[in-house]
Amino acid sequence: MVTELMVPRLIERKRDGGVLTAAEWEALIRGYVDGIVPDYQMAALAMAVIFRGLEDAELVALTRAMLHSGARFELGDLDRPRVDKHSIGGVGDKTSLLLAPMLACLDVAVPMISGRGLGHTGGTLDKLEAIPGFRTGLSLAEARRQLERIGVVMVGQTPELVPADRKLYALRDVTGTVESIPLISASIMSKKLAESLTGLVLDIKTGSGAFITDPAQSLILAQTMIQLGEASGCRTIGLLTAMDRPLGVACGNALEVAEAIRGLRGSGPADLMEVTFALGAEMLIAGGVTADRSEARRRVEQVVSSGAALERFRGMVEAQGGDPRVVDDSGRLPRAPVRREVTAGRAGTVSRVEPRPIGQAIVALGGGRMRTEDSVDPAVGFEIRVRPGQRVSAADLVAVVHARSEADADRAEASLAAAIQVGDGSQPLPLISHRVTAAGAESLG
Amino acid sequence: MVTELMVPRLIERKRDGGVLTAAEWEALIRGYVDGIVPDYQMAALAMAVIFRGLEDAELVALTRAMLHSGARFELGDLDRPRVDKHSIGGVGDKTSLLLAPMLACLDVAVPMISGRGLGHTGGTLDKLEAIPGFRTGLSLAEARRQLERIGVVMVGQTPELVPADRKLYALRDVTGTVESIPLISASIMSKKLAESLTGLVLDIKTGSGAFITDPAQSLILAQTMIQLGEASGCRTIGLLTAMDRPLGVACGNALEVAEAIRGLRGSGPADLMEVTFALGAEMLIAGGVTADRSEARRRVEQVVSSGAALERFRGMVEAQGGDPRVVDDSGRLPRAPVRREVTAGRAGTVSRVEPRPIGQAIVALGGGRMRTEDSVDPAVGFEIRVRPGQRVSAADLVAVVHARSEADADRAEASLAAAIQVGDGSQPLPLISHRVTAAGAESLG
Repeated sequence: MVTELMVPRLIERKRDGGVLTAAEWEALIRGYVDGIVPDYQMAALAMAVIFRGLEDAELVALTRAMLHSGARFELGDLDRPRVDKHSIGGVGDKTSLLLAPMLACLDVAVPMISGRGLGHTGGTLDKLEAIPGFRTGLSLAEARRQLERIGVVMVGQTPELVPADRKLYALRDVTGTVESIPLISASIMSKKLAESLTGLVLDIKTGSGAFITDPAQSLILAQTMIQLGEASGCRTIGLLTAMDRPLGVACGNALEVAEAIRGLRGSGPADLMEVTFALGAEMLIAGGVTADRSEARRRVEQVVSSGAALERFRGMVEAQGGDPRVVDDSGRLPRAPVRREVTAGRAGTVSRVEPRPIGQAIVALGGGRMRTEDSVDPAVGFEIRVRPGQRVSAADLVAVVHARSEADADRAEASLAAAIQVGDGSQPLPLISHRVTAAGAESLG
Repeated sequence: MVTELMVPRLIERKRDGGVLTAAEWEALIRGYVDGIVPDYQMAALAMAVIFRGLEDAELVALTRAMLHSGARFELGDLDRPRVDKHSIGGVGDKTSLLLAPMLACLDVAVPMISGRGLGHTGGTLDKLEAIPGFRTGLSLAEARRQLERIGVVMVGQTPELVPADRKLYALRDVTGTVESIPLISASIMSKKLAESLTGLVLDIKTGSGAFITDPAQSLILAQTMIQLGEASGCRTIGLLTAMDRPLGVACGNALEVAEAIRGLRGSGPADLMEVTFALGAEMLIAGGVTADRSEARRRVEQVVSSGAALERFRGMVEAQGGDPRVVDDSGRLPRAPVRREVTAGRAGTVSRVEPRPIGQAIVALGGGRMRTEDSVDPAVGFEIRVRPGQRVSAADLVAVVHARSEADADRAEASLAAAIQVGDGSQPLPLISHRVTAAGAESLG
């Protein structure tokens, strides 16, 4: 138990560089969820954590306290490994839509609980909801039944899971306390551990379009989350992947669903397929299905080439109320009335394709959120047809804008001009730079 | 104007070591008072200020924004200088009760707005209210009339003055954001500047019983507040005085009133009289009455020896509804039923008389507050009869406890045993170590 009177002493201790005990973190988080610890005390504490950080034991304690703040998605009695993949926000990243059905074909259950887009990055729930009729708001009981039946479910956070995170995340978002590796790690890992996972793969985005742009900090974030996963008996593996350009071609909800379906047919953009297969192989390893990466890679490629993953995706869409005909006919997805082709304008080498302004331009088109309560236009977005390092002539197509109006398309085109630069050269990041496990980080670059 | 959505960007800028403009501080404080900026955003910002500090221009802007958040005690049309003295919290410090009537005898108006005790330190309002009938809750109009009539009024903060500080101070108190030199300075100086002062003397306590125990930090606090005063055309002078032991003998509300009255008769303890005369002389200088310190000192001593200050005190008590007979008969002040004498127990030199545990013991006796809303027992407290450096034999009286019950007295005696140490030597701080003005700090030690 914590009383409001004790909390200032705990805040002061953290402010002055001290350490809170596991019992104190548990009491703080319990008190916060119960309304005994007010928002203003938690905001001051979060800011103190921004400056002072958390010791390893504190981070484990905070994550457990958040996990214990609500119910779990109880799956311990399933006869299969439970594996999920989590990405730290990107632009054009639709790998979840491929990986969940792929892994479900490989004797792995995928209880994937995702979020919505916020800021310049997209969210898996928004993408799924571009499919007419698709329901992401399943109860835990419904999700459990679907998981037993087809091995995969893709849903949103339910109110009973990790209420402390929902409350704390909303607070951090409006108090300048988002950018903290321990607070980000505790937020993500408490939600993932609530899925009763046996294995987890983290896709840690690096580069200018990632939430964390410094590669050294990305690595620390990966290691911090892996430590938290392993401390709770969940095998956790991280891949550091490039977010100095969008992943794939499609950026925008319905466009990304269409590209994910092409990917499940084996004909997605090369970078998307490479990241998807690499993450999928790690999911098999994290799930304990095989320890051999080549074997794992072969198996995830095989469920795509056989068409099994596409069929599982169709089954999931149908199970969750979506129109399964989109799988064969992307024309059934929402389409924007204005389609504008954008050319390079000058000859040279594409030097930059910046994800952040592209993501912000999607928001401006109506395809993302300024505030949590905003609704999203699924149809709008971009096809980004060039990559850094690619040679172009002035007349070459670099992108296609999908917009609600000509005026919107004008603005989006202007944003693209700043995001896509043609110059003399480029130094793109390696697509997958590091593999990180509890044993350490291995460079793949 | 500020919107809630902009505030996170301002918090982030301060968090990352940036600077907010005067317009931004004005908008933040206005928004906070108007309820647009919620407590949790202000708490996060305050914690960021704890770590990042404020630049000089920001501090001036914040102080002005707080001052502008409400009305002023408008006194600009008075024909006399308006001078006040403010102390940064101590134990046994009753100088305000002497200084206000003393200066009123010297063609200076003293519009003294004081606070209540909180933590281990006493508050002037609690002391005054130990006088039966004394009202500290005057309206600004009543206070103004009294000031015109007798040149002195001692009241509490009114709701219309600096509402931003009242709200922000209450928030800081429960969010671990009290200990910040810029926030302390803005809080104090916005309230003092609201008194329309032409001069201000700051009594900056130093040593183990002060809020700020590091002498170097005390000096920075003094200089910061002086800078704020001078920036608003208020001549401001600081004295750094010792709070490694209580000031005077009496500690506790009614006991201190009795000692202040003895002081106004010229027979107070030497350390109390010395600090009172030194502060009083500076008040005359800050008020522009004279620039000569010896002359100023002579004049403040003279109003005591003539009895004028005591008569002015009596007039003030009467004007504010108090029983003026206490001036001649301290027996009319509340008295505690239990009076316990405490002896040294061993022979030696008094090495420490720690104000902080003594102040905490007064709170435990009921003479101070754990929470703002607690009521205070005016009668309880201590007479501390020894000073660091004084030689004692085992049977010598070191203190007298005034308590509500024998059990309370037992506990208070145990606290005293820890606070008053007899050992081999001592190194007390000089009673008045520095004089600080806009021109710099001068050592008096």
